[in-house]
Amino acid sequence: MKRIYFDNAATTPLSQEVIEEMNRVMQNYFGNPSSIHHYGREAKVIIENSRKTIAKLLNVSPAEIFFTSGATEANNTAIIESVSDLGVKRIITSPIEHHAVLNTVEHLVRENLVELDLVKLNHRGRIDLTHLEELLQKPEKTLVSLMYANNEIANLLPVKEVSSLCRTYNAFFHSDMVQAMGHYRIDLQKLDVDFATCSAHKFHGPKGTGFLYVNNNNVRIEPFIHGGAQERNMRGGTENIYGIAGMAKAFDLAHKNLSNDKKYILGLKLYMKEQLQNHFKDIEFVGESGDKSLYTILNVLFPKIDSSEMLLFNLDIEGLVVSSGSACTAGIAEVSHVIHSLGINSEKPSIRFSFSKYNTKTEVDESIKILSKFFI
Amino acid sequence: MKRIYFDNAATTPLSQEVIEEMNRVMQNYFGNPSSIHHYGREAKVIIENSRKTIAKLLNVSPAEIFFTSGATEANNTAIIESVSDLGVKRIITSPIEHHAVLNTVEHLVRENLVELDLVKLNHRGRIDLTHLEELLQKPEKTLVSLMYANNEIANLLPVKEVSSLCRTYNAFFHSDMVQAMGHYRIDLQKLDVDFATCSAHKFHGPKGTGFLYVNNNNVRIEPFIHGGAQERNMRGGTENIYGIAGMAKAFDLAHKNLSNDKKYILGLKLYMKEQLQNHFKDIEFVGESGDKSLYTILNVLFPKIDSSEMLLFNLDIEGLVVSSGSACTAGIAEVSHVIHSLGINSEKPSIRFSFSKYNTKTEVDESIKILSKFFI
Repeated sequence: MKRIYFDNAATTPLSQEVIEEMNRVMQNYFGNPSSIHHYGREAKVIIENSRKTIAKLLNVSPAEIFFTSGATEANNTAIIESVSDLGVKRIITSPIEHHAVLNTVEHLVRENLVELDLVKLNHRGRIDLTHLEELLQKPEKTLVSLMYANNEIANLLPVKEVSSLCRTYNAFFHSDMVQAMGHYRIDLQKLDVDFATCSAHKFHGPKGTGFLYVNNNNVRIEPFIHGGAQERNMRGGTENIYGIAGMAKAFDLAHKNLSNDKKYILGLKLYMKEQLQNHFKDIEFVGESGDKSLYTILNVLFPKIDSSEMLLFNLDIEGLVVSSGSACTAGIAEVSHVIHSLGINSEKPSIRFSFSKYNTKTEVDESIKILSKFFI
Repeated sequence: MKRIYFDNAATTPLSQEVIEEMNRVMQNYFGNPSSIHHYGREAKVIIENSRKTIAKLLNVSPAEIFFTSGATEANNTAIIESVSDLGVKRIITSPIEHHAVLNTVEHLVRENLVELDLVKLNHRGRIDLTHLEELLQKPEKTLVSLMYANNEIANLLPVKEVSSLCRTYNAFFHSDMVQAMGHYRIDLQKLDVDFATCSAHKFHGPKGTGFLYVNNNNVRIEPFIHGGAQERNMRGGTENIYGIAGMAKAFDLAHKNLSNDKKYILGLKLYMKEQLQNHFKDIEFVGESGDKSLYTILNVLFPKIDSSEMLLFNLDIEGLVVSSGSACTAGIAEVSHVIHSLGINSEKPSIRFSFSKYNTKTEVDESIKILSKFFI
């Protein structure tokens, strides 16, 4: 059965070039990168070259990039070590962050290690910067954690404005950049954040690998995972060298084709939006639009139907693969915490369409036909 | 240049069958295992089948196996969460554990979260069980962390005896089983430990993947890495599906050929020992021997020579790839904490030879020739 995969915000297919790169490493380099002999040094070179590739594309020093098992571990490291090592007593975040941030913060709150302040959002999920500034005026040492691009409703944060506010009030700033990395050219030095995180599988790289950027000018943290001296004593554990090499390859490819891919994918999103408007009545688009919206995601609120709960299953059966929000939840269909936070009528089904360079306009047309079986 | 790789305790080459399995997954299954649609469910099946394969070989329930980014993360999880969630106030361990254990414990000691007691060893590094029992008589809630097979000197722990002692004194028992998993048939239910850890790259599986076994009859812990609901809410982060599938394949292969491989590798170790004794005077073997020693590792103390510090480099140049101990240290040649703990004269160079099924007797003969250039 031919399927239409519009769930690229959950994960993307590996590109063939990435698979080839991973195979090159799997076949030829097996040493432990911590070993001082020939095979160890060969493996170490692969890791350090990967680090250089990534650092250069983000305009930072390789010494500021730490490889992890993914963005979740990287987010945990930034948030938990800010509290352990940087004296953070209060965290400001928003109700529409990813669970990797929210659940980590809630864990710290339960342990009485931090206070929590949630910044206000408008009805489109836009962060209220005036409220953020008010919150920042409290004297406690603060970490602000706000994501670059929301994984459900595509809102883009004005990252530089937030980092400037954080500098003014002497707060640390962590940004989950999972949906933005590989999709925008990001100059981390210019953005002046303290921590940023990335996951390779969102831009056709491998699952189980990601990194944490730590701004060496402003912060020094201890390891979250204790063990060997890997990652310059910052993260114990033998490195996933095929994953790291695959991530660097995917990151490099994403940047090489970024402008064209961006234009192409934005074209698909806008075409989908137009077709949805042409074919269905009473639909609404969730979140911000235009330049304030990530070009890979379109979140749509459809009218209430009898089979709302079964909608995703039914669409899947018809060959249209979409989601109602983050994949990283219980593996069951439940109302997204993001949609819920925006005060949206949860009886109306929301569908997240998320696109990659491998999608086509024909797929958009096909998906409209499939949706027509459920909505008028 | 043809090289002899006798550093299999640091890491092993991937087997071709494992690379093929990883490619099968990379090429055909890209879904996010948390997604409820077709592609997500396909990916989930791979993970759950991998879990079943591993659990069956260890005679435990699949619900007791949690995938991690490797044994270091798994060791951190067991130790840190024992303190956070199980009321552990004191840890008993030994000075010859891996840094993934020792550095984690030392972190908790520095944070004043636990007391530390080190169990005594004899001159061969054998754990003094009488002393362990004395220590266990203190009333504080205790975690015992002792490894199954030492990664430097090959000593095997009488795991069942230790677990019985722990049960008697109501202590929790964690065992780093990295060097034993895939090399011995391990019945975890029978051994009755609370936590055990494994790393795939020690038995021709991929780097960057491992697991934590948690005894569901006796312990319930919270996640160490917070985020999505993966691993039944125990470990956030999109799963490294190729790594997990590769690990299960490698684990299965290791068990299919275990008896033959064990006999073959032990043969190499004993031949190496014999040849060393025949060719060099004043050499000593470090650690226990016979049934009390892991069959993959031989640790040898050579007589003091002028170029001791440069020895490993010089052997590497000659094509003999060995180590002086754990690879997971600073990436520089330094005296091993294990050798140091045994009170061994650190002026004498110690070399760890570690073997796999891919090594041959001819390589042993060649390595004796190379060693003859440095020792008489």
